[in-house]
Amino acid sequence: MKKFMDKDFLLDTEAAKMLFHSFAEAEPIFDWHCHLTAKEIYENKQPDNIYDLWLSGDHYKWRAMRSAGIDEKYITGDGDPKEKFISFAKTLTLAIGNPLFHWSHLELQRYFGIDTVLNEDTAEEIWNETKRKIDEGGFTPREIIKKSNVFALCTTDDPCDDLLYHQKLRETDFSVKVLPAFRPDKAINIETHDFPSWISALSSVSGLSVSTYTEMKAALIQRMDFFKENGCAASDQAVASVVYAPATEAELEEIFKKAASGQPLTKDELDKYKYETLCFFGREYAKRGFVMELHLGAMRNNSTRMFKSIGPDTGFDSVDDPQIAFGLSRFLDELDKDGLLPKTVLFCLNPKDNYVLGTMLGNFQSSEAVGKLQFGSAWWFNDNIDGMRTQMKSLANLGVLGGFVGMVTDSRSFLSYPRHEYFRRILCALVGSWVESGLYPYDEKALEKIIRGISFENAKRYLLG
Amino acid sequence: MKKFMDKDFLLDTEAAKMLFHSFAEAEPIFDWHCHLTAKEIYENKQPDNIYDLWLSGDHYKWRAMRSAGIDEKYITGDGDPKEKFISFAKTLTLAIGNPLFHWSHLELQRYFGIDTVLNEDTAEEIWNETKRKIDEGGFTPREIIKKSNVFALCTTDDPCDDLLYHQKLRETDFSVKVLPAFRPDKAINIETHDFPSWISALSSVSGLSVSTYTEMKAALIQRMDFFKENGCAASDQAVASVVYAPATEAELEEIFKKAASGQPLTKDELDKYKYETLCFFGREYAKRGFVMELHLGAMRNNSTRMFKSIGPDTGFDSVDDPQIAFGLSRFLDELDKDGLLPKTVLFCLNPKDNYVLGTMLGNFQSSEAVGKLQFGSAWWFNDNIDGMRTQMKSLANLGVLGGFVGMVTDSRSFLSYPRHEYFRRILCALVGSWVESGLYPYDEKALEKIIRGISFENAKRYLLG
Amino acid sequence: MKKFMDKDFLLDTEAAKMLFHSFAEAEPIFDWHCHLTAKEIYENKQPDNIYDLWLSGDHYKWRAMRSAGIDEKYITGDGDPKEKFISFAKTLTLAIGNPLFHWSHLELQRYFGIDTVLNEDTAEEIWNETKRKIDEGGFTPREIIKKSNVFALCTTDDPCDDLLYHQKLRETDFSVKVLPAFRPDKAINIETHDFPSWISALSSVSGLSVSTYTEMKAALIQRMDFFKENGCAASDQAVASVVYAPATEAELEEIFKKAASGQPLTKDELDKYKYETLCFFGREYAKRGFVMELHLGAMRNNSTRMFKSIGPDTGFDSVDDPQIAFGLSRFLDELDKDGLLPKTVLFCLNPKDNYVLGTMLGNFQSSEAVGKLQFGSAWWFNDNIDGMRTQMKSLANLGVLGGFVGMVTDSRSFLSYPRHEYFRRILCALVGSWVESGLYPYDEKALEKIIRGISFENAKRYLLG
Repeated sequence: MKKFMDKDFLLDTEAAKMLFHSFAEAEPIFDWHCHLTAKEIYENKQPDNIYDLWLSGDHYKWRAMRSAGIDEKYITGDGDPKEKFISFAKTLTLAIGNPLFHWSHLELQRYFGIDTVLNEDTAEEIWNETKRKIDEGGFTPREIIKKSNVFALCTTDDPCDDLLYHQKLRETDFSVKVLPAFRPDKAINIETHDFPSWISALSSVSGLSVSTYTEMKAALIQRMDFFKENGCAASDQAVASVVYAPATEAELEEIFKKAASGQPLTKDELDKYKYETLCFFGREYAKRGFVMELHLGAMRNNSTRMFKSIGPDTGFDSVDDPQIAFGLSRFLDELDKDGLLPKTVLFCLNPKDNYVLGTMLGNFQSSEAVGKLQFGSAWWFNDNIDGMRTQMKSLANLGVLGGFVGMVTDSRSFLSYPRHEYFRRILCALVGSWVESGLYPYDEKALEKIIRGISFENAKRYLLG
Repeated sequence: MKKFMDKDFLLDTEAAKMLFHSFAEAEPIFDWHCHLTAKEIYENKQPDNIYDLWLSGDHYKWRAMRSAGIDEKYITGDGDPKEKFISFAKTLTLAIGNPLFHWSHLELQRYFGIDTVLNEDTAEEIWNETKRKIDEGGFTPREIIKKSNVFALCTTDDPCDDLLYHQKLRETDFSVKVLPAFRPDKAINIETHDFPSWISALSSVSGLSVSTYTEMKAALIQRMDFFKENGCAASDQAVASVVYAPATEAELEEIFKKAASGQPLTKDELDKYKYETLCFFGREYAKRGFVMELHLGAMRNNSTRMFKSIGPDTGFDSVDDPQIAFGLSRFLDELDKDGLLPKTVLFCLNPKDNYVLGTMLGNFQSSEAVGKLQFGSAWWFNDNIDGMRTQMKSLANLGVLGGFVGMVTDSRSFLSYPRHEYFRRILCALVGSWVESGLYPYDEKALEKIIRGISFENAKRYLLG
Repeated sequence: MKKFMDKDFLLDTEAAKMLFHSFAEAEPIFDWHCHLTAKEIYENKQPDNIYDLWLSGDHYKWRAMRSAGIDEKYITGDGDPKEKFISFAKTLTLAIGNPLFHWSHLELQRYFGIDTVLNEDTAEEIWNETKRKIDEGGFTPREIIKKSNVFALCTTDDPCDDLLYHQKLRETDFSVKVLPAFRPDKAINIETHDFPSWISALSSVSGLSVSTYTEMKAALIQRMDFFKENGCAASDQAVASVVYAPATEAELEEIFKKAASGQPLTKDELDKYKYETLCFFGREYAKRGFVMELHLGAMRNNSTRMFKSIGPDTGFDSVDDPQIAFGLSRFLDELDKDGLLPKTVLFCLNPKDNYVLGTMLGNFQSSEAVGKLQFGSAWWFNDNIDGMRTQMKSLANLGVLGGFVGMVTDSRSFLSYPRHEYFRRILCALVGSWVESGLYPYDEKALEKIIRGISFENAKRYLLG
């Protein structure tokens, strides 16, 4: 029996151990998609206890606790932080096979030096031990990021963001690059009730009039230029699926006018607006060298009751199952045929789409980059051993794994960097199994290039050139 | 080479052997969804030979035989029972990798003490040996159920059923609980030609007039109360997918009137009727504490030729591929937002839906139960090693495996209980592999709770409180 | 560590080695679906170098090279052949886990006796060595086919083909059967701009007037009879999905008239035409004993830019995700209910459809053949270790693996026959793992029948009777 989560955790062959310890382990981290904010990093607040770090904002943990029958009082309610932590410990024991089990123990091991298994019996002891360590210092955002060997990270920012904290951070001595990423969800989600107020904000921040669709595009172009000046290298967009719905400028102006005045739109109007606005963004990203990330397949805020009670991003999202192939093909082709397809990373939430994405890439590759189109690493609900293996095997079977830009945490927590280690161990186990069983030659030079590339170098080259 | 199906069948690590033999093997069975009838159990007929037990009614075996090119005469036709058995033996040799191969040999081993491999050469000998054993006794329904260590089972009953045989059984000394389950498919499937006659039957059994939709609901409520009085703890519904189609009471009355008078309905009318009637049932189940089971994704009676010749449930059903996420989310939310979502078990027939279901659960969990929403065990065509592993790994990755209510046979055969053993071996192999490779600590207390829970205890607590 | 691709490549148990070396290795090949042409085989040209054999026409390799960032000049452009080969060698190193890696090395080993790993450092040496071997002879199409132990192969031919080269080949001393297969894509794809010219060609070759739908059917019947006289045993059809759209003869005549005169058709008209024409073909295949192959789920020519530049079948196709279950069920039932369902092989490109196809078969099996309906081997993008294992495990779980008709190359390259070896090794590894772990008895007689059957005998019996 292998020891629980020891130094060779997940490394089940000699080849895997060699690959991880020689090539992957020491590589820096480029976390090019996450939900940390520049403000939090700048403010650099000292946490009080492990509840602050683990449970105050992590909807993955909240969801698991609800599944284990914990009362909402001890999840997002007014329960005592320590009791919440104990409730989470109880949940974790039942969450066998869930990535939370490994993430939590990796975080205890790497940041606190605690090898004890967290459960109901040890929760009190671990609460106290982590409290002691936190009080000793080293747990502010910037300290954690430095300790985690992070080379750079990309936040996720609305076009209206003034990037003040990114600028302030550059004036500090913090050596890790904190780059903005352009996420214009609010420009796309024209049906939400706050679209008119978002338009006003866009007008304010840009100093431009935004009373027509054409003007909105001009203001957004100004914002993209501003983001670019501030180091932006990537954009991001969440869509359930891309619906192919070409429209004329006149139609788009009409639709914009209706939405800006708060009138409801038809499904056809929405589809047209979203499709053409995505095309607009794609072309502008290509002109600026922004990577375009598309996150496909989430169905959000499923519980009306809980949305009313505690709002979005609280653990009530799930996997949608739209057809995605046709619309995505038409969208990418629309950009490609004019030579305005940016570097693009496609993420899917439903693993049924792995072969659609894995083969879609190949339709639009070119010599602009190794892997100009990328299959994004296993995302959100897929961010587990099976999901990561499946995504990498799909990519390997359908394309060129050696050019893969690898892992992102997509996290809101400062302690999530061990997910890169988790990913690298799974990568090395997979590649190691091929080498060990004679499916790929033991060629250290080739293997080093592949493992270092996927761990860090490919992302650096892809995002920063 | 491991011996064929010995005591450590499927248990490929020391941890797996320990888990199965220490915790899983001796647990009783709660078979909370099957297609046995109370009448058969009450009548307790003596079978004549293994044909009666294996081939007279099992469409899984019939399907395999057709795939092997056996003539229908030796499947459901007038062929000699022994020749049919020999035809099945020939089929089985070619059915390598099919669960039938394991089910059949488990049944020979557990009920007949026969370790011989069934094939063309041994069929005659096994026919004779099983005949001898059957003649010695111990093979009536109740004897088999007792021998199988069954604690309780739920049958599947139409609302019009008078539950006479459930009542008669309670008057016998048979100690196994035989509980009715409420399956109102005929109330939902309003498009079938026998809906008007079913309405009449509902009126008769309830003693109430059923000439309007409102009256039908009243009669169904009376039936639910009656089922509850008779120990019912679960309901069941088969739907390809839930289509979101809200309607007014006036619309529903109009649709009911058309259907009751035998007029054809439009797709829109059907969708509205089915959606609102499902919502009605959901709310009433919540009020009564019934578990709501939904079986999604079957496409039935595909062969017109064979349906005309031998009717439904004869092996001509297959896997459908509708989009299920949106409608299911809207349905569950509709109940949840009024606080009337019952405990719910979601089963899917198409494994492409595993991640949709596995994440849908998390949207509606609450402290009413550990795992108030459950991902049903691998069902029907998925009821095999790969399907069960995939379902359990999906559940583990996306939720809390430790709260899983586990296996049901969903069977029409009295010899199907070893499928629980099969499931438990696969469960222990999976959990054992995690322990053996250092992914979960060797914590006997936690492992015992998890394995006993999934084998039996969770289902007992979930269904019977 | 196992040696790279040695004689026990992929055979990871003793049982697997025994099965492959005793039963699978020496079986001949029946490659019943490929894209070689009788003309090339008849003309039997001597290649000049490995570029001619590997890179002049293989869109799998082109696609991989584009993903690795190679300039199109060195893919399909005017780059030097040797430089193209070196670019491919660089690509291959990064394509770890891709079947191209194994296919390429199998071809170097089996046809050139080269065990060296191909990479940037060895490319020049391998270029020279293969050049020397090619110049020594033995690399014409017919020599390669003979050396590959091919018993028979089926080409893919338009109904208008005069089969001249099939006839000429029969007059040579070439002992391998080269059979035509009927592929009426151009009769189905009525929306393409060359439909009118194809109609003219059909009229010419048949000597019949083709001015109505009825006349077209008569001409196609004449072609089917002609193909049958020339040894045709199989047909083939590519469709994204079968849309159920029954129509009257009068409607079909109207639709035909519009299309023949170059008028555009509505979606409804297209669906009706395609559905009924597929039904027509199915019935006629049944009458002639042709096997009907359906290839479902490809989305072709996604890149407008590259289609304009280098045309179809150049590596710009990908996986579509339509719903397929309902239409396919109605289509097969339409033929079956009249007793005119031919032997049918269903291939899917999207692995999400594996369980739909694997269970669809069972709806329409009969004693006309062992496995009258077949689940086609893992096709195109699925033709890799994971895809083949998954397809075979799906078939095994859902049907009778022992009756499987096995592998086809579906290739345009004369060096692709080692893909049969690759398939057989994966088959033997899978079956071997079951035997080794006690899931199937070590019964040499049964195993020999299964392995020889799937490798060759089943296809021979299924296609040639």
